[in-house]
Amino acid sequence: MPDLTLFTYDWVPPPPRGYVRDLRVRWALEEAGLPYRVASTPFDDRGPAHLAHQPFGQAPWLTDGDLSIFETGAILLHLGGLSAKLMPSDRRGRSDVTEWVFGALNSVEMASLPWTMLKFMGEPGSKFFDNFIELRLKRMENVLADREWLTGSFSVADILMADVLRIVERFDGLAGSPACRAYVARATARPAFAKARDDQMAHFAAADATRSV
Amino acid sequence: MPDLTLFTYDWVPPPPRGYVRDLRVRWALEEAGLPYRVASTPFDDRGPAHLAHQPFGQAPWLTDGDLSIFETGAILLHLGGLSAKLMPSDRRGRSDVTEWVFGALNSVEMASLPWTMLKFMGEPGSKFFDNFIELRLKRMENVLADREWLTGSFSVADILMADVLRIVERFDGLAGSPACRAYVARATARPAFAKARDDQMAHFAAADATRSV
Repeated sequence: MPDLTLFTYDWVPPPPRGYVRDLRVRWALEEAGLPYRVASTPFDDRGPAHLAHQPFGQAPWLTDGDLSIFETGAILLHLGGLSAKLMPSDRRGRSDVTEWVFGALNSVEMASLPWTMLKFMGEPGSKFFDNFIELRLKRMENVLADREWLTGSFSVADILMADVLRIVERFDGLAGSPACRAYVARATARPAFAKARDDQMAHFAAADATRSV
Repeated sequence: MPDLTLFTYDWVPPPPRGYVRDLRVRWALEEAGLPYRVASTPFDDRGPAHLAHQPFGQAPWLTDGDLSIFETGAILLHLGGLSAKLMPSDRRGRSDVTEWVFGALNSVEMASLPWTMLKFMGEPGSKFFDNFIELRLKRMENVLADREWLTGSFSVADILMADVLRIVERFDGLAGSPACRAYVARATARPAFAKARDDQMAHFAAADATRSV
């Protein structure tokens, strides 16, 4: 029986709210219907206790009993092992989902993150990184043109890919990628996504009151 | 019994040789002593047959019997399941290696790739991406200060982390990170790394002759 606690920041400034990566974990937990607790770690003071669980000083991490796991990709593969709603249990199903988990993070987000970070920070754009994300989106248009989800059924790979593309869309990066845009709309129409996003927003909003005291 | 074939480009121009990502897969296969074949896919013409195995038009991919797997991270986790020399088989060991596989690719390479791509392409540097990789290297210095390998013993996570940091070192990015530099030296001193690199160099060099005919 899993014993799951999701650790995220106690508070973040408004701009990243709704996009903090604990959302990816919340979304998976809600899809699977797994019971879990949410615990907070200080955003302002990321000391040794934080680094012992997340050596890069980021969030989230997840504990399952005596296991502590950082990196959203690793957390989602772990949850995939707990629920067939997140990842099939047969050899081919697991392999297909795993390759697309890495595809979302290492082929698409590897290109989208530099692009979105420059936008988010208000830095000058870069032709080089514009071309990088454009190339990846072109490939994803082909992939998504004729399928509902990346593998045979909705999985943790879709949670990651949809959230990666959702951040691109936030900065109007999907205007020329209708299949990607429709995929994001399809994924984020799922009740588990709305629950995850609303819960994240409420978690950080609740901390505003405490901080203003 | 695994039935492994590694697919890589038939040829690449000289600058990336020794750094093409099939090296990460070759390295793991050599560490494990698993038998494998190497097959080529055209570098110049990446058509539907290529995209059917690697939807981003990149290399490598691996087949294991009827399974075809793209993304180096997914391939290395698959190989980890085939050999305890690459990943322990107990629950905690698998979890620790998996989180560091993602740590190497998504926390460190996510920051090092924009930095190294700008260097590789001879583009102007960026203070923003300089800071991003510097922050990650600072965290990795702490992690590597008091351990030989990322988890209890050498694993696929070390293959990925060492290769990610090796590319940073190629562009003199580890001058202020002695623990990272010593870790790269330790990892690349392993005979399996040398075999993998030499085999990759020979594979591409053999194609030079064919192309000049």
